[in-house]
Parts: sequence; C-alpha cells; structure tokens
Amino acid sequence: MPRFRMTVEYDGSPYFGWQLQTNGPSVQGALEAAVLSLTKEIVSFRGAGRTDSGVHAKGQVVHVDLARAWEPYKLRNALNAHLAMAGEAVSVLNVEAVTEDFDARFSALRRHYLYRIICRKSRLALEHKRAWWVSKDLDHEAMHAAAQMLVGRHDFTTFRSVHCQANSPVRTLDRLDVTRDGDLIEIRATAQSFLHNQIRSFAGTLKLAGDGGMTAEDVKAALEACDRKACGPVAPPDGLYFMQVDYPDVIPPRQPRPETKNDGVYLS
Amino acid sequence: MPRFRMTVEYDGSPYFGWQLQTNGPSVQGALEAAVLSLTKEIVSFRGAGRTDSGVHAKGQVVHVDLARAWEPYKLRNALNAHLAMAGEAVSVLNVEAVTEDFDARFSALRRHYLYRIICRKSRLALEHKRAWWVSKDLDHEAMHAAAQMLVGRHDFTTFRSVHCQANSPVRTLDRLDVTRDGDLIEIRATAQSFLHNQIRSFAGTLKLAGDGGMTAEDVKAALEACDRKACGPVAPPDGLYFMQVDYPDVIPPRQPRPETKNDGVYLS
Repeated sequence: MPRFRMTVEYDGSPYFGWQLQTNGPSVQGALEAAVLSLTKEIVSFRGAGRTDSGVHAKGQVVHVDLARAWEPYKLRNALNAHLAMAGEAVSVLNVEAVTEDFDARFSALRRHYLYRIICRKSRLALEHKRAWWVSKDLDHEAMHAAAQMLVGRHDFTTFRSVHCQANSPVRTLDRLDVTRDGDLIEIRATAQSFLHNQIRSFAGTLKLAGDGGMTAEDVKAALEACDRKACGPVAPPDGLYFMQVDYPDVIPPRQPRPETKNDGVYLS
Repeated sequence: MPRFRMTVEYDGSPYFGWQLQTNGPSVQGALEAAVLSLTKEIVSFRGAGRTDSGVHAKGQVVHVDLARAWEPYKLRNALNAHLAMAGEAVSVLNVEAVTEDFDARFSALRRHYLYRIICRKSRLALEHKRAWWVSKDLDHEAMHAAAQMLVGRHDFTTFRSVHCQANSPVRTLDRLDVTRDGDLIEIRATAQSFLHNQIRSFAGTLKLAGDGGMTAEDVKAALEACDRKACGPVAPPDGLYFMQVDYPDVIPPRQPRPETKNDGVYLS
C-alpha cells in the first residue's frame, strides 16, 4: 500500500495526548477520523513520539498507509479540510510519499524538543497553555551550566516517570541548551530518543537550578543518584513542544525489528 | 480618589471587545468584575483604545480610580488572582499610582499596533486565532512599498469603518512597516490615534498589494479616492495586537476636555 510521511502541528491543550485513547480526544484519533471521513478507510497512524496530554507539536512526524496513491499536496489539503470541519487543533504541514521502509518511529535518527518558560510577575493571558509561567526570575546561565551536567550518555533513572515502559534508562542526550530572550527562557533538547517525562523532568530540575534551589553540582549528583526522588518537580506539559525529527536521507531497507516496542518513544 | 494606571494583556478571542457590553463578555467587564470581587467597589475603567471583538492586546493601557491608596504591586497581584479565579484571559502586567491628570485615553501621545499574517499552505493549529492565515505567499516588499503610500497626514475615509464615529477622517500615520520572518509577515503601525477598523483595513488592502491584486499606485489611488469602496476586504481581528501606548514623561495638568468623546479612540 502507498505509504505517506507527514509533518504535523498541533495545539496539545484540548487532547489527551498523541496516542489514541478510549476516554478522550487524541491527536492520533483526530487524524484517523479525518482519513475515515475523507476515504472511508480505517487506518492507524504511527508517530515519531507519543506526546503526553497538553504537549504541543510543531513538527511531529507520522506515517500512514492508504489504499490510493494520492498526490501528496492534495492529500495534505484534503486532510486539513476535514480537520477544519471537525474543529480539530491539528494541521498537516507536509505530506510526502515514502517507501514501506520508512517508519516514523524506527527510522528516526534524532528528536528535537523545546521547553518554554515565561518568567514574570503576572499570569499569562496570550501565552496561557503555551508556556510554563514562573513568577520569579530565573538565572538562565545557571540553568544552562546545570544542563551541561546532563549531556552525554547516562542512566537517566532520576529523570524518567515511574510509569516509563522503556527497557533501559540509558540514553544519550546530544544537547540541552538554555537561552533567554526577554522574559522567555527556552530549553532545547536533542537526542535519538527520550524517556517518558524526561524533558519535563529536566525542565523542573533546571528551574530549581535557575532559582537557586539547586547548584550544577546538585544536578550532577541527582543524575548520579539514579533515583526518581532526586528529580525536581516535573514541569507542566504546557511549555513543551515537539519540534522536529531527523531521518537519514536514504532510508535503509527494512530489517526485522527487535523487541523494542516500548523503548524510546516517549516524550516527557 | 487614588488613580492607577495599568498595562493590560489579553487574548481577545473570547471577548466581544474591550468595551463593556450588555450582550457578552468584554475585557473592561472582566477588569471591573475583578475590582468588584476584590474591593466591593463599582468602578469604570478607561482604556487607551477600544479594541474590537477578537483583537488582542499586549500593552493596552487603562486607568481606574479606587477608594484605597494601594501598593501598586499588591493591587496587580490581587487583580490577577481575581482574574485567574474567574477564568479570564486577561492579565494586569503593571500598575502605577498616577495623578488625576493622567487619562489613559486623552494623555496618549502615540499608539502602536501589530498585525500578524502567516502565509503557508496549511491551516493554523498553534496560531489559530492569533494570526491571519493566508494560504498563498505574499510579497512583503511590495506590501511595504504600498504601505509607504499611506504614511503621513491624510483623509483616511477609504480605510475607516462606515460605523466609525470620529468627527474627522483625517489622521497622521507615523509608521506602517511590513517585515517578514519565515512564513510570518508583521505589519507595524504607529499613530497618535486611529480610526475604527483602520489597521484591519490597511492589512486587508496590503494583502492585495502582496498577492499582486493591487500595485502601490493602486493603494495610493484608493487613499486619494476617499471612498470606503476602494478599500480591500477588511482583515480578520485574529491578527491584530494592541502593543503599546506612549505618554509624556510628565503629564500636564488637566485641561477642560473639548467635545471629542468619539474621536480617535478606535483600533483595528
């Protein structure tokens, strides 16, 4: 069957997360309903990462198999029309025809996320549900210095949810940068894959590094403790954006997949 | 009575506009309800500009008279707490004690607005109601060139709503700049005051200049026609933000006000 790769943007606030749910709306469910309404096909979308309830995406990547060899731009426009009719907060930014070797999840080389914190005295109106509001000022340079303690290959037990189903807590964090623009603090994280709640756990801990509650050495000790109790309070989903997924230019022919079905697909 | 000047941010999408309405929620109503809930006072807020339904603000300036000489930061925090409890999309960014010579509307020297257009093929998810979605690409340089035809002192009859109640259609437009950052086109407008729907009329007309529907000369001719029918379709409120109001460093003692009550206080 023709396979399509899509880049998807969504406002996560009305959804129970990426993954299809029986108890509430999901982004996957919105896309599958749009296909059903468009072609009468019952399909299953696979995403590069399962975002939690309230987490946004500017560049989630998904794939789906359809009966027809659509012109990619027509499929994009038709799906967006059906998403608009249904009042969904989801937009298909791009569609490409790909071979069956492409898998949004397993082909991914790197995933990029952004966590946004706004430091100011007053509650958020325009950025409500789009950022984490912190009412005290944070020292972004102290946050960045602490973040560097986390970069590299480590056992991230401290920074993963107790519900995380990954087989191994070991991941290689390529980048964790903290920058500032006015009252907006941005944390950018890149890795091949993340553990469940990993970025929100980083953000909550780095917030403590920014308000003087933890030093960079404390963050290093928390990592080395391999103990969930050493983590700062997990930051809210509102500030987290799934930004981009990198794939190889040429997708290698499909290999039989090892048993990794619960490994490395969670986002914070 | 002690007078307070406040800078206010709001998401305009749930409101029928700035001004108190009998038929629906307004930003002014939200602020007045917050004061009533805080101090049991029935007060009237005055804004520097009356934004229309769906128009946002990052820097609306308002004033109000209260019985008590509040510490400004305590008043800000208390009003924000009451706005949060009521679930309003309004935030008080700053409070200052001012003399009774200060009037948010009449003391204003200049008003600054931003109009945001996002040009892309796909509908907006994260920027839904925060920008005008235009599905074709626009030439922002052609838009900027056309905008320069409008700068200066002119009769802006072409660019004001037929419902505009200002005595005179003559205004001095200080600045109308069009810039681009990726798929985002920003129009920045500055004047002492604007006519009703003036900026949305500019944005709708400049969009035509950007897609080849009008030349800069056509925009000049539309201005000179002093005819509402020469205006492009009025752009939606979603993209408009009231950004900032400038006041003199020293507010001159209050003069008896001329009869200008419907003059120069409209935005969009």
